Amino acid sequence: MSKAKGYAAHSHDTPLVPFAFQRREPLADDVVIDILYCGICHSDIHQARNEWGSSSFPMVPGHEIVGVVSQVGSAVSRFKAGDKVGIGCLVDSCRTCSECQDGLEQYCEHPVFTYNSYDSHLNTQTYGGYSNRIVVDQHFVLAISDKLDLAATAPLLCAGITTYSPLKHWQIGPGSKVGIVGLGGLGHMGVKFAHALGAEVVLFTTTPSKAQDAKRLGADAVVISKHAEDMAKHTLSFDFILNTVAAPHNLDAYTQLLKRDGTLCLVGVPDQPHPSPSAGALIFKRRQLAGSLIGGIKETQEMLDFCAEYSIVSDIEVINMQDVNNAFERVLRSDVKYRFVIDMASLA
Amino acid sequence: MSKAKGYAAHSHDTPLVPFAFQRREPLADDVVIDILYCGICHSDIHQARNEWGSSSFPMVPGHEIVGVVSQVGSAVSRFKAGDKVGIGCLVDSCRTCSECQDGLEQYCEHPVFTYNSYDSHLNTQTYGGYSNRIVVDQHFVLAISDKLDLAATAPLLCAGITTYSPLKHWQIGPGSKVGIVGLGGLGHMGVKFAHALGAEVVLFTTTPSKAQDAKRLGADAVVISKHAEDMAKHTLSFDFILNTVAAPHNLDAYTQLLKRDGTLCLVGVPDQPHPSPSAGALIFKRRQLAGSLIGGIKETQEMLDFCAEYSIVSDIEVINMQDVNNAFERVLRSDVKYRFVIDMASLA
Repeated sequence: MSKAKGYAAHSHDTPLVPFAFQRREPLADDVVIDILYCGICHSDIHQARNEWGSSSFPMVPGHEIVGVVSQVGSAVSRFKAGDKVGIGCLVDSCRTCSECQDGLEQYCEHPVFTYNSYDSHLNTQTYGGYSNRIVVDQHFVLAISDKLDLAATAPLLCAGITTYSPLKHWQIGPGSKVGIVGLGGLGHMGVKFAHALGAEVVLFTTTPSKAQDAKRLGADAVVISKHAEDMAKHTLSFDFILNTVAAPHNLDAYTQLLKRDGTLCLVGVPDQPHPSPSAGALIFKRRQLAGSLIGGIKETQEMLDFCAEYSIVSDIEVINMQDVNNAFERVLRSDVKYRFVIDMASLA
Repeated sequence: MSKAKGYAAHSHDTPLVPFAFQRREPLADDVVIDILYCGICHSDIHQARNEWGSSSFPMVPGHEIVGVVSQVGSAVSRFKAGDKVGIGCLVDSCRTCSECQDGLEQYCEHPVFTYNSYDSHLNTQTYGGYSNRIVVDQHFVLAISDKLDLAATAPLLCAGITTYSPLKHWQIGPGSKVGIVGLGGLGHMGVKFAHALGAEVVLFTTTPSKAQDAKRLGADAVVISKHAEDMAKHTLSFDFILNTVAAPHNLDAYTQLLKRDGTLCLVGVPDQPHPSPSAGALIFKRRQLAGSLIGGIKETQEMLDFCAEYSIVSDIEVINMQDVNNAFERVLRSDVKYRFVIDMASLA
């Protein structure tokens, strides 16, 4: 065991505070990583506050991790000390089921998440990236190109892959018309990816002040979703709409904008159900309401390589570890463009 | 104009009664058909009773039509007098949009339905198959093989294509595990088609007494959907579930049975919305909730040819035209195995 330090929530209603804990000694396939940056995902707040009812404490959140390899186990061939690497939402899975065999570990029935998860193989609780080091099996370690800004790369590990994966799965490319609902941590990555993939991109937001920024990020058009007449202009025109808004809202407003055979894809789980979507809106144009969860390890690497090729990173605001509780409050107010990233040097 | 007779509803709350009306003189592309049989679809009742709010009266329902060609227009080459033919839900469409060009006329923005529809090209109200003759453009006329029993073929024109089309669109075949929800007019066709396509077929019903019949029709297994423990045995096992039940019900009970990337497809529009489906159930396995509407003309012909090849027809109860109002009541009680077909000889 080796000492680690980070910030942890000790209960659902107390702020994160400094926390000392142990990381395992590296196994043969393990990579030891000095964490440089960790993004703040909205789900970190949900989990730290036990809003999904499955939190165990103390909890060290963080699954948008970027760092440098400090040590590798005896069987590790893909990484060496000094390599720049990333860790996303997953640090293990069963490795044997059809999902794992297909490189879709996120759909494994026995995933081990980067924090607030129990690794039955190792009989350990997982602690996340709001900390100075982490030890992860090489299969779940991603290589990061020297071309990418490391701090701004951190959010790619969750917000990035969560939006990249569905765009790829539904074969978005030149000729596609894609809608992105919401311009937050996820949505701003969705706009960047859809644009880079060659699609025509329309950003839907309730906030008129976001229009200019959306266009800077790659949107061809911005629609204020409260304006029914502007929405109606896009009826039956979209191949795919990626809906990043988890707050309960009327999905039919978007379903109706899809072409025949179009898909509205959800990536956020609402606290309360969305109003029931219209069966007729699905039936009368053979449309689909779908969901998508992060991405597999292979695809996450593909996404990072795509980002290096197209110079894509997240728009971020770097903060010190000590400011995390304030940052949580700002995330809840959507007061961030578009992702907080903790500079782990501040933890020293 | 030529004289026709049938049964019509004159208001939403009066029974169908004998009705004399006019059919148009055949245009160059028209086929004149002596109607032999017409199936009773549940939607005939919805429309006759104005339950969808869009009914105009008098209304002659019926869109599961089988008959014999009596006359053809000067430009008709595909049909001749004496041919056995069918008419389904559509008698025209815009012919020029991308949907029509793709042979998916059912998704055209300007469809002309077989009854309760207005044909703007011809400035006429359409009257359906509860009648002795109909005049239809050859593009919307289907050829029926001599191998098929004509009366039992009538329901294929709506119940048949409504279930065949989604099974084909979602590429069901050997190796697929398919669920069919509900064993009525649609469901019993879904079981037959899924079985003939080579899939493993599970029928879901709330009625234990239907189990034996479901197996006779081709189901490999029957699950009583009220039995949660029996449902749970099928968790994460289905590629595709075709849900023929329009009454509002908990869709998550079926979504959870789908594999990763599986699809739950609705073909019935509920009067009241289904309870809102779980976004998480979609997201955590990249599942899809979809809808499908009848089928295009090309695919309807393909379905009829498939039926001739595999000896598939509907299970029917033949009635006289005069019994239509009683049959409506029996349909509402699900007291039919599995489709009423009106013998139009009774109208003479």
